Amino acid sequence: MVVKKRKIKTIKIKKKKTKSKGFESSKKSKKAVKKPAQKPKKSDNDSKKSELGITVKKTHDFSEWYTQAIQKAEMIEYSPVSGCMVIRPYAYSIWESIREFMDKEIKRMGIQNAYFPLFIPESLLKKEQEHVEGFTPEVAWVTHHGTTKFEERLAIRPTSETIMYDSYKKWIRSYKDLPLRLNQWCNIVRWEFKHPVPFLRTREFLWQEGHTAFAKREEAEKEVSEILELYARTLEELLAVPVIRGRKSESEKFAGAVYTDSVETFLPNGKAIQGGTSHFLGQNFSKAFDISFLDRKGNKQYVYQNSWGFTTRSIGIMIAMHGDDNGLVMPPRIAPTHIAIVPIVFSNKPTVNEKVMRVAKEIKKELKNFRVELDDRNEYSPGFKFNYWELRGVPLRIEIGPKDIEKKHVIFVRRDTGIKEAVKIEHVTVRAIKVLADIQDNLYNKAKKFLERSIVKVKTMNDFKKAISNGKIAFAQWCNCRECEDEIKDKTGAKTLNIPFKQPRVKGKCFCKCNKKAEKWVYFARSY
Amino acid sequence: MVVKKRKIKTIKIKKKKTKSKGFESSKKSKKAVKKPAQKPKKSDNDSKKSELGITVKKTHDFSEWYTQAIQKAEMIEYSPVSGCMVIRPYAYSIWESIREFMDKEIKRMGIQNAYFPLFIPESLLKKEQEHVEGFTPEVAWVTHHGTTKFEERLAIRPTSETIMYDSYKKWIRSYKDLPLRLNQWCNIVRWEFKHPVPFLRTREFLWQEGHTAFAKREEAEKEVSEILELYARTLEELLAVPVIRGRKSESEKFAGAVYTDSVETFLPNGKAIQGGTSHFLGQNFSKAFDISFLDRKGNKQYVYQNSWGFTTRSIGIMIAMHGDDNGLVMPPRIAPTHIAIVPIVFSNKPTVNEKVMRVAKEIKKELKNFRVELDDRNEYSPGFKFNYWELRGVPLRIEIGPKDIEKKHVIFVRRDTGIKEAVKIEHVTVRAIKVLADIQDNLYNKAKKFLERSIVKVKTMNDFKKAISNGKIAFAQWCNCRECEDEIKDKTGAKTLNIPFKQPRVKGKCFCKCNKKAEKWVYFARSY
Repeated sequence: MVVKKRKIKTIKIKKKKTKSKGFESSKKSKKAVKKPAQKPKKSDNDSKKSELGITVKKTHDFSEWYTQAIQKAEMIEYSPVSGCMVIRPYAYSIWESIREFMDKEIKRMGIQNAYFPLFIPESLLKKEQEHVEGFTPEVAWVTHHGTTKFEERLAIRPTSETIMYDSYKKWIRSYKDLPLRLNQWCNIVRWEFKHPVPFLRTREFLWQEGHTAFAKREEAEKEVSEILELYARTLEELLAVPVIRGRKSESEKFAGAVYTDSVETFLPNGKAIQGGTSHFLGQNFSKAFDISFLDRKGNKQYVYQNSWGFTTRSIGIMIAMHGDDNGLVMPPRIAPTHIAIVPIVFSNKPTVNEKVMRVAKEIKKELKNFRVELDDRNEYSPGFKFNYWELRGVPLRIEIGPKDIEKKHVIFVRRDTGIKEAVKIEHVTVRAIKVLADIQDNLYNKAKKFLERSIVKVKTMNDFKKAISNGKIAFAQWCNCRECEDEIKDKTGAKTLNIPFKQPRVKGKCFCKCNKKAEKWVYFARSY
Repeated sequence: MVVKKRKIKTIKIKKKKTKSKGFESSKKSKKAVKKPAQKPKKSDNDSKKSELGITVKKTHDFSEWYTQAIQKAEMIEYSPVSGCMVIRPYAYSIWESIREFMDKEIKRMGIQNAYFPLFIPESLLKKEQEHVEGFTPEVAWVTHHGTTKFEERLAIRPTSETIMYDSYKKWIRSYKDLPLRLNQWCNIVRWEFKHPVPFLRTREFLWQEGHTAFAKREEAEKEVSEILELYARTLEELLAVPVIRGRKSESEKFAGAVYTDSVETFLPNGKAIQGGTSHFLGQNFSKAFDISFLDRKGNKQYVYQNSWGFTTRSIGIMIAMHGDDNGLVMPPRIAPTHIAIVPIVFSNKPTVNEKVMRVAKEIKKELKNFRVELDDRNEYSPGFKFNYWELRGVPLRIEIGPKDIEKKHVIFVRRDTGIKEAVKIEHVTVRAIKVLADIQDNLYNKAKKFLERSIVKVKTMNDFKKAISNGKIAFAQWCNCRECEDEIKDKTGAKTLNIPFKQPRVKGKCFCKCNKKAEKWVYFARSY
């Protein structure tokens, strides 16, 4: 299992050739590219007309890179409704993997799934004043069915606290009805004004939302932390995205919550992004909705509540974090395809090709415990296929050519590093397990280093401004006052991400010249 | 494994007592009942005030029975939005079982999951004229976000043909892009005017909708049948609901389809109901949306399409079909709980109780491959618990009392027949497997007999009217004309269900006195 660079030289050259050509010419047909070739049976798929590759570098134009990467890998399609996207199978299967993982964990915690209506009557939505102010500008309103006008407008759920708690009020009477812990997987609509970005900021998205009620404050708060840890694990273990765990500032918390805990990360374009939030609602909603119970002594008490959500945004975070100039790079744990097998065949050698195809099929069979695609399409060259699977971020490619078969090995090519390696045919399964695990680790570690490198400890407002304008996260001692936060946002465009649970010792004054005592270390950055 | 009626006499009496009391008194508190006891630690749970049971007989007042059954078993909650319901965990987990089964089969067929936007711009919805006429009166319209009016109204998907095919048009260019076969699990809104009934007719419901495109008509038509068979299997094998497979009449088909195949069944209240539909769309949509491809010869062709859907209505069908005067009866394959273990404990015998509880726990452990609930609640009597689990339709109850333990056995009680049986402790697993399989079969066979008995072959209009007014399905030779169909509907309230694939020989004239030649045998009934 030695890296044999020389041996596979031909292949490498071929690949490079294709790629550079693809990159040069694909710009003009950005929107048209869905499947690799538009014209059937036209001979030269390695031609200069290849529309496969991404035409910009991630570091030069992140936004364009992202747009091309998700479209060319067939992750999304734009829809005629502005800000709403089609989640194509290749992306949806990632959501299915995330859901499967999280759903099992949520159920293991004793939380049950349910489904509540999409529509919320206006009066119900407005019952908890604080929370509704956060959403009102973004709510989509249903006013008519057929030609009939509704007596009361219906909101399309921007979140389901109100519609759910209206039922909780009916279900909870005694301490014996507690805890009540429900979750739902559904679609959500928030008509944000900011420029929509597929996955990262869409007007309709998919999520899970958990809504729980407890007799005791401590029980509720314990769950807030457990869920946050589940979100952190989903991002870190599945999506290989390292996160910062902490508490939101007062102005950034969920309106209606006592506090909001979040996991945050930082994307290569210098923008932070929230990965998931877990809210302790205290008795804010239970008092507004009269969700009360008789305790063991027969006294009326209000329940303590939580709500928490994790969305399809996570897919966008994963893409933005790991992708490179050749397209997506999928962490193996959520990769729709783990391994792409590309047989190296030659148009003038039918007998040799047959043998290559036979071995390729055997290897596919051998790798039955992985999600494997054998790319046996006749109409495309190997070089074209290399690009095709790279664009989709398939973690491991296996190349099989006639010379490899003679030597009883195949070539493993890692998507994350591009490193090639000859692997004995009898070792493919064992080696694939190891390589995929390594890729998962490597992606996480690379992202972790990037996140750590992006954090700059600042002492003064000048340092702070420099860090922000350099596209970094500023980590600073702060007075924890809304006024300073607003002023900083106005001046620099940076928001607080969160106040990390792991706090260095605080001493002295706030960095922002307000002359108040510093209270907490907090992360600031430009963010989504 | 002998049925020992005498031995378990005490238990039986106890149970009966509870039940009859519950039935007498529960009417007044219909809406309040969510959890069995409202007041903690009040001694007599077997008291006359028990609100647990259903207060009407299924045969006397089906509608009231259904309403009570689904609410008292905690399947649904009414929401403040008329016609939209909350699917509670006990019902939602059935949907999860259905989804898991169908999703696996759908993927096995090579169909992939995706997600398309909830919103459809009005102009897009109206692109295929025929289909939209069927839906327009039922469409819910979004007109505003925040305080801003949309330039164009957005429909909330009543079905997704148009929003999906708008993408299909972009994705399909060459024969190599075919077949394109996608499915999505989502929510749907149809603001029907008829009286909503939870599960059976709700204004928002959950479903899967498959949308496929093929190069060849035969391929598409083959899939229509395969999917219909999947729907039939889901109803028959999972939900133990026998169905009639056939083709919809012209006036009952999906507007926009060339033809619609359906599975239909018949509920104990004398009303037929559609269980799932699979539509062959031909080129109706592909021509309206210009979904075309270049075939191998480079000629432009329009694709042939299908669409097919299966909804949460199926849960209501299952409930209506199998439930009895004591509540739900769940087919084991989708029962959220397979087995409820009820320890028979006595307040004055703590040492004995301990032993009973120990054995109960051991048996729960032994039955780890089933979904088992051990009802160890101290505050309720065994009789109360019997009712509780019966109401929820748990297929098998295991009673364990001190005398049973002495004899090294436990008592199995079947929910479907009420039959009791002493089972040696060492045989519980083997016997549970057998009993649950028997229950599944028995429910199906009972329903099958009911369906068969409900079908009346009619020759004349008089026979027809008699059959319909007796709450039967009329099976008749028919001219297959829309005019006759409309007239029959006006006169008798009966609609065609479908034209079964298995046709007896047709000869002579239509039954309806129109004097036209009979073309097909068809089922008519009053229906949802």
